[in-house]
Amino acid sequence: MRLPVPVQVRWSDLDAYGHVNNAALLTLLEEARVTAFWAGGPEDAPTTAIIDAGPGASSLTVIARQESEYLGQIPHHRLPLVVEIWIGRMSGASMDVCYEVHAPDRSQVYARAQTTVVMLDAASGRPRRLTAEERAAWEPYLEEPVAFRRR
Amino acid sequence: MRLPVPVQVRWSDLDAYGHVNNAALLTLLEEARVTAFWAGGPEDAPTTAIIDAGPGASSLTVIARQESEYLGQIPHHRLPLVVEIWIGRMSGASMDVCYEVHAPDRSQVYARAQTTVVMLDAASGRPRRLTAEERAAWEPYLEEPVAFRRR
Amino acid sequence: MRLPVPVQVRWSDLDAYGHVNNAALLTLLEEARVTAFWAGGPEDAPTTAIIDAGPGASSLTVIARQESEYLGQIPHHRLPLVVEIWIGRMSGASMDVCYEVHAPDRSQVYARAQTTVVMLDAASGRPRRLTAEERAAWEPYLEEPVAFRRR
Amino acid sequence: MRLPVPVQVRWSDLDAYGHVNNAALLTLLEEARVTAFWAGGPEDAPTTAIIDAGPGASSLTVIARQESEYLGQIPHHRLPLVVEIWIGRMSGASMDVCYEVHAPDRSQVYARAQTTVVMLDAASGRPRRLTAEERAAWEPYLEEPVAFRRR
Repeated sequence: MRLPVPVQVRWSDLDAYGHVNNAALLTLLEEARVTAFWAGGPEDAPTTAIIDAGPGASSLTVIARQESEYLGQIPHHRLPLVVEIWIGRMSGASMDVCYEVHAPDRSQVYARAQTTVVMLDAASGRPRRLTAEERAAWEPYLEEPVAFRRR
Repeated sequence: MRLPVPVQVRWSDLDAYGHVNNAALLTLLEEARVTAFWAGGPEDAPTTAIIDAGPGASSLTVIARQESEYLGQIPHHRLPLVVEIWIGRMSGASMDVCYEVHAPDRSQVYARAQTTVVMLDAASGRPRRLTAEERAAWEPYLEEPVAFRRR
Repeated sequence: MRLPVPVQVRWSDLDAYGHVNNAALLTLLEEARVTAFWAGGPEDAPTTAIIDAGPGASSLTVIARQESEYLGQIPHHRLPLVVEIWIGRMSGASMDVCYEVHAPDRSQVYARAQTTVVMLDAASGRPRRLTAEERAAWEPYLEEPVAFRRR
Repeated sequence: MRLPVPVQVRWSDLDAYGHVNNAALLTLLEEARVTAFWAGGPEDAPTTAIIDAGPGASSLTVIARQESEYLGQIPHHRLPLVVEIWIGRMSGASMDVCYEVHAPDRSQVYARAQTTVVMLDAASGRPRRLTAEERAAWEPYLEEPVAFRRR
């Protein structure tokens, strides 16, 4: 199952070519990830949002690897993009988060991407295992990883 | 009358001090301004949103002046900030846009700011006058400019 | 006396209008400020660079107020801009940092700005007084504050 | 052969974890790429810098694919990082740009990355072939592509 997360493009995400800059796309994916997985959100936060991350939290989430494929240039949109998010793999201390970035009206896929997130214990700075609670919450969102067109 | 505009803080707006960076605040104000004034938004866009700005549009909006006062450090919030926006002054080709930045639950004012926006004709790149339609749409939002504490 | 600080524009500082975004200008000023005032730089760091700020340092520097005036749109430059920096006022726990942003060949002034920086003790999070050492290092750079054209 | 390009980290590239944000790393790579390949730089620009890209130029360079591996968290540095850049593959209308990101004193490798850049004709917006001049300028920098540790 995939979780659709609305993510707003900002005017300053566009570069002088008039499209969302390639680095800004990773910021949009980061926002989707924060919404999907970090605890402490609004009452209608997704049930997947259970990592105690963010400032002053017990866990840090760091990125070990990132891969993205751009299928079309993203213009400015007034309505939020829809970032479909799912989990391609869970291992001891890390997981592969997968994304498909859609136009607000879902008429077009702009990008696909995959991020390896490692969980760290904030106090020690060392990797920590995914908890049973995390595995249970995220299991329904396990799907095949992104099939990149070129590699 | 003031228009309340929800604006989402991003994780990457925070700098290493754990608060929204001072330059990132201006990006948040820019998003409030785009929502409040640029045409082409969603069906529930504010009735003030009538400038044909953005890529490929007939008008450009450039910033001539900017002033901001920080009353408190802005932490990460999962819910959007509320940026109250109003107009402090309209003149021939420009207007002063005023802002008060509130916590999501309005328990705190984080910042006040004011921006002088100049309207340019996109074809000529030269200032153009505010139209009668623009004046009519924005008149209800004319209020006293921001009273900065220090200058 | 003014200290000239070279600051590199990035491609992503430009927005879809093809010029440095107004919020990105504040990031450029921040870089000039970090170069001018924070300790720990390269051997040829300016003699003004003596605040122990940055991650893990004894002082935090926060922004209380910011004012900027844009005299021209800043295009992409391959060579660094020259940001002239000086101090308009030193008081107990704060100072006004002033800037004039020049084209790399100094053929044009793009912007003038002023920032009120407050010194905080990192441990307590409370304002701390400028030290005698700081005052001595910065005294030669005291000049008249920016004369803004409009207010 | 690899081209070492100095790239300055900015204070605002750090997120609240106190390290360079994963999306900001792509901005640093973009700056290395612009320095290495875009024409119009300073007199000591690398001899590889021959694409007429940037605002108003005859070519656009768009990103089709991006892959990055983070080997260590990047702290704030006062001196520029050294981004070693080379070309892993040239084909008809695209090339794979490879990077290894080093600490300023080269004591540590922070990241490896690879970007597929497609050349577009700015007028038509369609892919254009690499020119003979481009191939000749870049041939000395052809090396094995990045060997990513995990995939």
